[in-house]
Amino acid sequence: MSTFGARLRAQLAARGPLCVGIDPHEALLRDWGLSVDATGVREFGLRVVDAAAGRVAVIKPQVSFFERFGAAGFAALEEVLAAARAAELLVIADAKRGDIGTTMDAYAAAWLTPGAPLEADALTVNPYLGVGALASTFDLALAHGKGVFVLAATSNPEGEILQSAQTVSGTVAGSIAAAVAGYDAARSVGEWSSLGLVVGATVDLGKRGLEAPSEGTLAVLAPGFGTQGADPEDLDRIFGRFAPGVIASESRSILSAGPHALADRIEARSALYRGGSHG
Amino acid sequence: MSTFGARLRAQLAARGPLCVGIDPHEALLRDWGLSVDATGVREFGLRVVDAAAGRVAVIKPQVSFFERFGAAGFAALEEVLAAARAAELLVIADAKRGDIGTTMDAYAAAWLTPGAPLEADALTVNPYLGVGALASTFDLALAHGKGVFVLAATSNPEGEILQSAQTVSGTVAGSIAAAVAGYDAARSVGEWSSLGLVVGATVDLGKRGLEAPSEGTLAVLAPGFGTQGADPEDLDRIFGRFAPGVIASESRSILSAGPHALADRIEARSALYRGGSHG
Repeated sequence: MSTFGARLRAQLAARGPLCVGIDPHEALLRDWGLSVDATGVREFGLRVVDAAAGRVAVIKPQVSFFERFGAAGFAALEEVLAAARAAELLVIADAKRGDIGTTMDAYAAAWLTPGAPLEADALTVNPYLGVGALASTFDLALAHGKGVFVLAATSNPEGEILQSAQTVSGTVAGSIAAAVAGYDAARSVGEWSSLGLVVGATVDLGKRGLEAPSEGTLAVLAPGFGTQGADPEDLDRIFGRFAPGVIASESRSILSAGPHALADRIEARSALYRGGSHG
Repeated sequence: MSTFGARLRAQLAARGPLCVGIDPHEALLRDWGLSVDATGVREFGLRVVDAAAGRVAVIKPQVSFFERFGAAGFAALEEVLAAARAAELLVIADAKRGDIGTTMDAYAAAWLTPGAPLEADALTVNPYLGVGALASTFDLALAHGKGVFVLAATSNPEGEILQSAQTVSGTVAGSIAAAVAGYDAARSVGEWSSLGLVVGATVDLGKRGLEAPSEGTLAVLAPGFGTQGADPEDLDRIFGRFAPGVIASESRSILSAGPHALADRIEARSALYRGGSHG
């Protein structure tokens, strides 16, 4: 069984860092001429998968836009996930789940068990209850060749107070990065990590205490490129030693192309990254 | 339209503070003789609703145990939620969702819109991205007579580093409590709040910077009673000025009774609270 880390690095090297977000919010559904219901999000998701297949390494469905429609929305998401798997796209389920004990284990099982209806390649999780509370999720992920991305530093201004608060060992964001790296260092010796951090591309990394991560092997899921402000050509400058493992996530800048121009837009955005030092 | 806060306080006054958790994890499903699948969690949830109806004010389904089974699990949860509504139980969906912008709005819409398939009376949310990022969720909840409980201080030891980190205005947990209270103070003048905090009953409130909340009208969802260690008779001592708005959540201590003795166990546990100053 290959690890998520190995599959991710191979795909990033082959296709570049662009990750296409699948964010079928109400306004976009209307722009695309789709119904604002489970049928609409299903169609939206399948069209993005179709346009992304063979063009990028990773897609990232935003779970809330499917959850919005209850069980029918999740049935739509199951179809989108299956289509992405069939198209050999790596899928990061952006669900930001976070809990403790058997409750957290059930979230991990939902998204990271081979054969589960919501199976993805990796899951985003929330560390408010402590990175230690996520250890069995990391264990489950690694046992199944899956990945986990832990929220660390986000670009929205409301997040700064909490994420920059001081623990006994640096900022909250920095202590989370260190804890994930520490967990990983004990398990991924000599390999690309299957664990990663979510770090917004427009975050001031120094201000959040992330300027010197203790390990350089963690992957980084970085929203904030495109419409949200970060330029593809700045990826290396922004992320320094993290750069080879950065997944640059774009949603609005791509999805605004509409369903017909989508594949061309993905090609064009992806080229902006591959034209840089990743090309 | 009545507010969630008003409905909650009336129900707590009439039936006492006990909230029954619906946590159909694998071991419990087997103990109850149910299948470990969507059919099992549906049956489990419906039996708890049936036993809780008329005996307690609030039930709290743990969403992860339904999510575990994908769309079929959510279909089961929809049935459980509908049964709880029909039985006039207040339902707190324990989903701990947290995100920003339109993504967070979609979670709020999923759980707090009247008529939505996953409609509940209140939702638990995660503040890692900032309490400010939850403002539109609070707005949506209040507009629909719904409630929101924000994670503040949890009893698991792994949570302490982050929750006790120091912001410019006290601990992380304390700053979250103050931010929620501040939002609420501007909107719930002279009323019971429809917003609340999640605070574990075995947390050292002083150590987490929660000893002196700026407002006493917030509700508190308190896991940690029963098997997890807090005694019902200690509720007033533990929560002080928060006590009249405390929802004491128990899961294992009740669910371990099995399906047949469940109603009796709920009666017995509830009496322990009502025998105190809430009686």
